[in-house]
Amino acid sequence: MNKRTYNFYPGPATLPTEVLEQAQSELLNWQNKGISVMEISHRSKEYIELAMKAEQDLRDLLNIPTNYKVLFMQGGAHLQFSCTALNLLDKNQSSDYVVTGIWSQKALKEAQKIAKANVIFDGSKYNFTDIGDVSNWQLNSDAGYVHYCSNETVGGLQLRELPNVGDVPLVCDMSSDILSRPIDISKFGLIYAGAQKNMGPSGITVVIVREDLLTRSANTNIPSMLNYNTYAGSDSMYNTPPTFAWYLLGLVLKWLKKQGGLSEIAKLNYSKQQMLYDYIDNSNFYSNKITHKYRSYMNVPFYLKDENLNQQFIDGANKRGLLGLKGHRLVGGMRASIYNAITIEAMQKLIEYMQEFAKENN
Amino acid sequence: MNKRTYNFYPGPATLPTEVLEQAQSELLNWQNKGISVMEISHRSKEYIELAMKAEQDLRDLLNIPTNYKVLFMQGGAHLQFSCTALNLLDKNQSSDYVVTGIWSQKALKEAQKIAKANVIFDGSKYNFTDIGDVSNWQLNSDAGYVHYCSNETVGGLQLRELPNVGDVPLVCDMSSDILSRPIDISKFGLIYAGAQKNMGPSGITVVIVREDLLTRSANTNIPSMLNYNTYAGSDSMYNTPPTFAWYLLGLVLKWLKKQGGLSEIAKLNYSKQQMLYDYIDNSNFYSNKITHKYRSYMNVPFYLKDENLNQQFIDGANKRGLLGLKGHRLVGGMRASIYNAITIEAMQKLIEYMQEFAKENN
Repeated sequence: MNKRTYNFYPGPATLPTEVLEQAQSELLNWQNKGISVMEISHRSKEYIELAMKAEQDLRDLLNIPTNYKVLFMQGGAHLQFSCTALNLLDKNQSSDYVVTGIWSQKALKEAQKIAKANVIFDGSKYNFTDIGDVSNWQLNSDAGYVHYCSNETVGGLQLRELPNVGDVPLVCDMSSDILSRPIDISKFGLIYAGAQKNMGPSGITVVIVREDLLTRSANTNIPSMLNYNTYAGSDSMYNTPPTFAWYLLGLVLKWLKKQGGLSEIAKLNYSKQQMLYDYIDNSNFYSNKITHKYRSYMNVPFYLKDENLNQQFIDGANKRGLLGLKGHRLVGGMRASIYNAITIEAMQKLIEYMQEFAKENN
Repeated sequence: MNKRTYNFYPGPATLPTEVLEQAQSELLNWQNKGISVMEISHRSKEYIELAMKAEQDLRDLLNIPTNYKVLFMQGGAHLQFSCTALNLLDKNQSSDYVVTGIWSQKALKEAQKIAKANVIFDGSKYNFTDIGDVSNWQLNSDAGYVHYCSNETVGGLQLRELPNVGDVPLVCDMSSDILSRPIDISKFGLIYAGAQKNMGPSGITVVIVREDLLTRSANTNIPSMLNYNTYAGSDSMYNTPPTFAWYLLGLVLKWLKKQGGLSEIAKLNYSKQQMLYDYIDNSNFYSNKITHKYRSYMNVPFYLKDENLNQQFIDGANKRGLLGLKGHRLVGGMRASIYNAITIEAMQKLIEYMQEFAKENN
């Protein structure tokens, strides 16, 4: 048996143990072929079957309508920051950006290299701890799209309600909360997500796009690897895809179905975050700065009463096999990333440790 | 023990068995940490160490001069087709392209979306079976760079001599023959290669670039993920890299060093191709159409005397555990891809089968 530690890294992040065990068992002998899945051609019928199954499982889990394409790309959310602006804007058209933290700021910055992008909400006035009232966003009805990030991994701030932006396509960076709960895909024009939080290893990115939006970049001179039509027209196999990452993504989706799908995983995620925030709020040693309504269910930043104890907290956690708890350098403190694959047991171990550390140092 | 078959796929391709065995043994417990290498943050000191070691091993193996940067990117050679033109050309500058097959044609097509690209050699007049005399290339001294593909995977044509292009930077798509033999890096301005032939799994791309060329795109509006400076300035960790693919690449490099480095692997590759071409040339059943001087040491396309037997040949090969021998749909016939990880034993098994098949069907 493998001794597994508790891994709260923000991404690449922990994967379900049984996914890794299956990958391990067949790593040199996939489907009894005497080769690894990473050694087979992406053009082989066996691999194509694997890829199509992963897409179907994603469609089943998210209930993706038939007028949406699912694309498998590389380059992470960062490449999507450029792809969205390149693919979705007509000439001289601008876009609307909701800035709720570091990731949406980065998305805005990349989009501004390509076309005019309006900031319709700037959360920096709240130091990215609040979003305020979504109905106050100053939407431009002629914008090519409205972009937001549903979960800010660094700040630990999540917008769970789906914003109503009228007829303008809603574009969402869902990298760190996709598949954590059921959502209504039909409310979106496009969703993108790097896999390395809730879906698999790093190196593969999922894009879900409403078909009619693909016409906007159909006959453009965008580099092929950045044009959504390249992927939509080739089942994402125009060039060699990241085959092993796609395979692991497929295993994670299979695991998710086995857990009962997104409604079940949402219940688990609700319980997990409640355990941790409740403990933090009731302690006089730890604190979280985010407005309650917008607290992230995926990434929980917290601060020790005495910041001088940070390193001691981390060292003690590592000794107990609680990894990845150091906060992002831009915000400091601690952060527990509690994606789908984090178990209740892991939450209990974390909270136990936090209790003991507080007791010893309060 | 795992029973391994012989895998002649063109890419993703066979990997050294001992690389896969190491990956398997530590898949759930890397460095005794109780987590997988694909679950650890790319910002952790352990992962950064792994990444730096891979770069150093690549530098050692290829003897990369200190004035060259090594970048680890995503998107395969296809994304590099765009990156080269975006990063290496001054405004209104054109580039020179040598077209020796399908891959250099694709590179040209992408470059032409961005700027003027001159075709200085067009091998389609030889049906891509010959390159003729390299000294006849019509070089433009004011070109931003000269681009060629050192090994055309589909056609099975390789340019082993390093072309002399004067002071214009030489750019090479080395995806399918990098690390197959020693080369003089100092003759190049930039080399790029997808990993999935000789270096690792798909999903990671290596770029080796002479530092002075980076100034050309230093202050441009190129999307960050396509700008070489983004990677050069962040040890290729501006965003989350494909961490597991990078890890496997590192294991392959370690394996290569253990084999004795590139001079030893070059001897092995020389022997392997010689065995196969000798057999083909001496048979009256198989043929290869490429001018001898330019025959690829990595990908050996061959045709049966009777093309109606193609499917029978493939079926028989699969039954014996000889996989991936079907030729590319654009050129038909058969193809044996015999990258570094293909053993002499695999070559013997292939040739034995070819002999028997010829005997039975001649």
